[in-house]
Amino acid sequence: MRYTSAAIETLIEEFAKLPGIGRKTAQRLAMHILHEPKSGAERLAGALIDIKEKVIRCSVCQNVTDRDADPCYICSSTGRDRSVICVVESPADVLAFEKTGHYKGQYHVLHGLVSPLDGIGPDDIRINELLARLGGRHETVPVKEVVLALNPTVEGETTSLYITRLLKPFGISVTKIARGIPVGAELEFIDEATLSRAMEGRSAV
Amino acid sequence: MRYTSAAIETLIEEFAKLPGIGRKTAQRLAMHILHEPKSGAERLAGALIDIKEKVIRCSVCQNVTDRDADPCYICSSTGRDRSVICVVESPADVLAFEKTGHYKGQYHVLHGLVSPLDGIGPDDIRINELLARLGGRHETVPVKEVVLALNPTVEGETTSLYITRLLKPFGISVTKIARGIPVGAELEFIDEATLSRAMEGRSAV
Repeated sequence: MRYTSAAIETLIEEFAKLPGIGRKTAQRLAMHILHEPKSGAERLAGALIDIKEKVIRCSVCQNVTDRDADPCYICSSTGRDRSVICVVESPADVLAFEKTGHYKGQYHVLHGLVSPLDGIGPDDIRINELLARLGGRHETVPVKEVVLALNPTVEGETTSLYITRLLKPFGISVTKIARGIPVGAELEFIDEATLSRAMEGRSAV
Repeated sequence: MRYTSAAIETLIEEFAKLPGIGRKTAQRLAMHILHEPKSGAERLAGALIDIKEKVIRCSVCQNVTDRDADPCYICSSTGRDRSVICVVESPADVLAFEKTGHYKGQYHVLHGLVSPLDGIGPDDIRINELLARLGGRHETVPVKEVVLALNPTVEGETTSLYITRLLKPFGISVTKIARGIPVGAELEFIDEATLSRAMEGRSAV
């Protein structure tokens, strides 16, 4: 059954196309927009158009940035360590590391992982751009360390292995973030694979 | 912590203003829009503008309709019983009744309920428009029955009572939808108020 207004029905359908938004939620959102001042709907509509028109990938680290801010603010910051590059899968991962406030190096966003089953090869993600950075085209300070911070999945491990091999000739230190017990977790509820990795990666106290 | 793109950040903030959408969901939606073809974002943006520009209230039943479809399709339908008007709070309630496929009369949407605590009086909702319809200005067939189908809350009951009193001089039959046990419910889990109403409203079998 449809609303008596085609405009409402169209908006509901468009909202329902978004991930995790069902028909009921879409109806609620459309009704909210309908009762809100016009400026609210215009701001959201403007932001939707802007994201498609303004967002590009940083020419250095490949993270998302605005057309008028390339290289991105992390790459152009003078306060960060340019000798370390942390390799991540997506812009959301950069956000996660930035939230910690601990890491002060640079990033490189691959925008995907090597996944032969899905037909994604090394040339489909931004690995070549990483090699170019190490080749010294952009960087003024030589890169000393590449930290691989990819998800602990089959695709993540495959990509890590592939990049590690590619970086060998550069003579750069390649590291991987630690796998182990999350802070605050209880040992008895941790899965076997994580526990084994934690034991392997034990360090002196 | 913010994304490295102001355009992405703005869209996340706009999404997060919608009801039931938190910062995490807003991020997921923004990332979806970023990776989607441009046409998808444009369709959603267009629908948002359209709903504010095209949607009006039907001059007869006050339900939402498009600017180029007034009276709405229910009011202008020739196949519906014009002698019965069902009074509801919101357009969503019309939708709920239409879904049943049983009710074939007209509707009247109040767009709210009398609620003195919230400062909403009878003149703030579309009661006068209901009286105008009964006065016969729009209707060609005389109205014989007004069915009150408002939510069983204090505000709903107050509004029902108010309308019932107003309609007395018109000599029209005023009815209320039945309160009782929902279909499929188990008696032992029904609250006392509903059970009392169900007992009061018992009918011969």
